[in-house]
Amino acid sequence: MDAGTSPRERYRAQVRAEIKQHAWEQLATTGVAALSLNAIAKQLGMSGPALYRYFASRDELITDLVRDAYRSLADTVRSAFDAGADVAGLAHAIRKWALDDPQRYLLIYGTPVPGYHAPDDTTTISDKVMVVLIDAFAAQPRNGPVSAPASRRALSFWTRVHGVLSLELAGHFAGMDVDPAQLFADEVDTLL
Amino acid sequence: MDAGTSPRERYRAQVRAEIKQHAWEQLATTGVAALSLNAIAKQLGMSGPALYRYFASRDELITDLVRDAYRSLADTVRSAFDAGADVAGLAHAIRKWALDDPQRYLLIYGTPVPGYHAPDDTTTISDKVMVVLIDAFAAQPRNGPVSAPASRRALSFWTRVHGVLSLELAGHFAGMDVDPAQLFADEVDTLL
Repeated sequence: MDAGTSPRERYRAQVRAEIKQHAWEQLATTGVAALSLNAIAKQLGMSGPALYRYFASRDELITDLVRDAYRSLADTVRSAFDAGADVAGLAHAIRKWALDDPQRYLLIYGTPVPGYHAPDDTTTISDKVMVVLIDAFAAQPRNGPVSAPASRRALSFWTRVHGVLSLELAGHFAGMDVDPAQLFADEVDTLL
Repeated sequence: MDAGTSPRERYRAQVRAEIKQHAWEQLATTGVAALSLNAIAKQLGMSGPALYRYFASRDELITDLVRDAYRSLADTVRSAFDAGADVAGLAHAIRKWALDDPQRYLLIYGTPVPGYHAPDDTTTISDKVMVVLIDAFAAQPRNGPVSAPASRRALSFWTRVHGVLSLELAGHFAGMDVDPAQLFADEVDTLL
């Protein structure tokens, strides 16, 4: 959050945070495509035009949520790595992050929002995750005859982690004789 | 499509197909969470209540789309297998199916629709895909020291294929130095 220095700026930051909190709740109940700034304004006891002084459009609000989600993931991965986590440890941190708040994960990695395009700077934030993953693979002792460079292994890590996590979050393993945590750990193991 | 035998039944099947066609278009433009039966009725020059004689609710319409998507995927995989495709051939058929109509793929494997739960029989249809995959793995000559049973390999096939495909469909490889087709083929190779 960009906490301003003047009372006016702090108030603005606070209202924006409240709007985003309501937006996350809407995502869970109606989905991001049906996100309604007017509905949020009503919940906050504001007029629609008053709310638009904080977020000029639905897309600007979504972008803020997307940025927050990527930043939160990047911080999670960086903190785990700095605390000594290896590749398996990072995978565990990412899974915990996703399960703690599936909406946040699905906003950035789920079905794209029709008509919405994330600005380029969100890619810059998501790249920070990849940088940590590549560092982690470069530092990882190899169990088997894995010869691919760290960047290639980090890419496969990303797609395999996403493959299991997104199917788990969408409930596709329900009713199957599958332990998602074990499946996830097994997939990460194949990359070590 | 359940083509009826009487003219009345055939007409009903035709109208239902038209409604679904418009629903698929809405999915692409507004997303499934914002699917509006009233908007579809308007496009078809029908009243809202008239449309509800064909689909009693939004959820009933979504379920029909979900069933069609699973059936189409199951038919695609079965046809490829019956025509002699091995695991790599099935993977290619699945990727083509997904890229041909991303909305269809994302409806069943993307972000769950808030408030919607697919009925159990959709699982039965999706199981048909897994049955073919397991048969294909059981028949697959092994390149390396792969000791896992066919069902376990089919499960990893599913999560790895989904990991690459869903990130590709959502545009996550854009701007990266990644060839999604090659990455996809490499992931399938790791399972052989």
